[in-house]
Amino acid sequence: MKQLSITLIILLGIYSCKPSSKQSSTAKVKAEKVLILDSLLHPWSMAFLSEEEVLITEKDRKLIKANLSTKEKNIIKGFPDDLVDSIRVKDFRDNSGLFEVIKHPRFEENHFIYVSYAAESNEGTTTKIIRASLKEDSLSDVKSIFLAEPYRFDLFHYGGGMTFGQDGKLYVTIGERFYNEIDQPALPVAQDLNDRRGKIHRLNEDGSIPKDNPTFEGESLPSIYASGIRAAQGIHMDPVSGQIWFSEHGSVQGDELNLLKPGANYGWPIETTGKYRNKTFSPPKIKNAQFTPPKYYWLQTIAPSGLTSYHGDEFPQWKGDLILSGLSRGSLWRIHLEDNEVVSLEELFVNDRVRSRKVASSPEGKLYMLTDEKNGKLIQIRNVAKP
Amino acid sequence: MKQLSITLIILLGIYSCKPSSKQSSTAKVKAEKVLILDSLLHPWSMAFLSEEEVLITEKDRKLIKANLSTKEKNIIKGFPDDLVDSIRVKDFRDNSGLFEVIKHPRFEENHFIYVSYAAESNEGTTTKIIRASLKEDSLSDVKSIFLAEPYRFDLFHYGGGMTFGQDGKLYVTIGERFYNEIDQPALPVAQDLNDRRGKIHRLNEDGSIPKDNPTFEGESLPSIYASGIRAAQGIHMDPVSGQIWFSEHGSVQGDELNLLKPGANYGWPIETTGKYRNKTFSPPKIKNAQFTPPKYYWLQTIAPSGLTSYHGDEFPQWKGDLILSGLSRGSLWRIHLEDNEVVSLEELFVNDRVRSRKVASSPEGKLYMLTDEKNGKLIQIRNVAKP
Repeated sequence: MKQLSITLIILLGIYSCKPSSKQSSTAKVKAEKVLILDSLLHPWSMAFLSEEEVLITEKDRKLIKANLSTKEKNIIKGFPDDLVDSIRVKDFRDNSGLFEVIKHPRFEENHFIYVSYAAESNEGTTTKIIRASLKEDSLSDVKSIFLAEPYRFDLFHYGGGMTFGQDGKLYVTIGERFYNEIDQPALPVAQDLNDRRGKIHRLNEDGSIPKDNPTFEGESLPSIYASGIRAAQGIHMDPVSGQIWFSEHGSVQGDELNLLKPGANYGWPIETTGKYRNKTFSPPKIKNAQFTPPKYYWLQTIAPSGLTSYHGDEFPQWKGDLILSGLSRGSLWRIHLEDNEVVSLEELFVNDRVRSRKVASSPEGKLYMLTDEKNGKLIQIRNVAKP
Repeated sequence: MKQLSITLIILLGIYSCKPSSKQSSTAKVKAEKVLILDSLLHPWSMAFLSEEEVLITEKDRKLIKANLSTKEKNIIKGFPDDLVDSIRVKDFRDNSGLFEVIKHPRFEENHFIYVSYAAESNEGTTTKIIRASLKEDSLSDVKSIFLAEPYRFDLFHYGGGMTFGQDGKLYVTIGERFYNEIDQPALPVAQDLNDRRGKIHRLNEDGSIPKDNPTFEGESLPSIYASGIRAAQGIHMDPVSGQIWFSEHGSVQGDELNLLKPGANYGWPIETTGKYRNKTFSPPKIKNAQFTPPKYYWLQTIAPSGLTSYHGDEFPQWKGDLILSGLSRGSLWRIHLEDNEVVSLEELFVNDRVRSRKVASSPEGKLYMLTDEKNGKLIQIRNVAKP
């Protein structure tokens, strides 16, 4: 008996053991794309209701609910009829359509979802955000909680990114709506604190303005949380650190990853890590301006779009990393952080590029991406490395 | 006794165990730079004699032997005196000096090392490769085994990269020696099979020409193994796959990673993934030319230099990956391959950039890099992640 006990101790001593788990955990990474759904018309965003069910916005069509097992897709009824008909537009640079869909943090209780889209009036289009109750594939209690007036006939840079912060507030990105910086007014809109465009706004869950929003020198719109942002789509609150990160499209290069700070001015178009589209553009001087630099910027154009953070078990090496999808050339990035600083970036699937607008995690932490194509796909990123 | 046996079996069943090892193996990666040596004058290359001792070429000074524990550095005596005095040159684009140092695969028996450098005559400089016997910090039996004539007064693109293949042959890179493609002759030198420049050559260990080198249509130099290469420095035979990879500097962008194939033409300057320095340059047509595309090319300029593959135990996730250092902006890349295709690329230490000319492994597989600075450093890359 004593001898066997000793054997047992020796055995446990020699082997460094760790508990087994359902998820196979391995030092190796072999990421593979698995097609889950196709026939999505330029999907823009997704929000998982469960491991099986996901809401998907198709930029050029509808808000739908898809079942990943049965592959069934249902159109969500009751969507406002001021959604722009983006199919009608023939400009390939048309950014209009349906944008982000996210759930309320207490969706299970209140069934609220939030959707951003290009709303149309006879004065053009602009970014609108609605809150609605989702029950049995229908929206009810639809409430417009933010309208990024003015309406304009240009079809660029709506923004539309949304995330809830740990503070329960809704953070939304609104693009500056200009294609070329030469078209800007004397005080560029992203620098104008009385203009909604080129900003990140912070709202209460019902669209009212929080009392503790940052204050700025001079008059300013009370919803503004940060300024100097050209065209941000991806915005994501990391559930562990509580930090909010956002991606930003540059003009000519200048694609950036930023860490959101209250009251920060990210510099556009006064300062940029890229170049201006129009070489004759000379940015005006802004008095007393302090600009917050990006945490990372790319020398090449990647057109960064959807952003999420990874906390699944399938890729233990990736825990806490940001995952970012890109439109230009189709790129997918894993961004490794230490203490909220970017330490390394891995571009995944360089031999299998596809335009992507969104990356997101399921409730259990599985990683998914949406491809921005006419035959758009929902793809799962799986680790197929042998343990 | 029986009960305890069952307990033991259950315990071993619940826990998935693996043997412990001296190297801590962990799913996590936390790469950290550790300074090992400094005061190196623009070091270019290194070859480990043991875990303690390493040969280092300083581009702008001497071939030295350094001890990583005692930090002692000794100048290797007996180096040929036609080594260019690169300090004399005041052009910041001066590429001349001392280049690669590698050991013979059977160094322990024959003490042979190979060194490439810019040799000077009254007609200018060119790339020379010597073989010499290294004993007690002195070279003897120094033999010039390759001279990339013609000598020229331009100071660009010597190449000088060297690796031994699994076939025991020596593969050397020779740059095209032009800064601007507009200076090329009608038949560009990298396409001219009677010109040594812009090529990879394959030699026997004594500098004689192997009989089984690839043959080309028409007359050609018998040492040529591959052509159409602008300026390659990093060349490395992966010891597991046996494949030889090389990095190549583009002109304006067009930095590439290539897989070496016998007789392949990599296209320069007829085809490039970048742009030409001179916008008026119109490449001539080459009859019946078949160009081999790179395995990867960068959209931004990275100025790829030293190349190695990782097979250590410290980063189990990196096994089999290529590691590449870059001069421009200072970048260090981990390139993940599957079946000799590039699948993903991670840029490491983006928050701690430093120009680097060389990455190499010690005999035990530890990873080192050399920084290209006036106060150049030998740095070890360690995994400091907690298991």
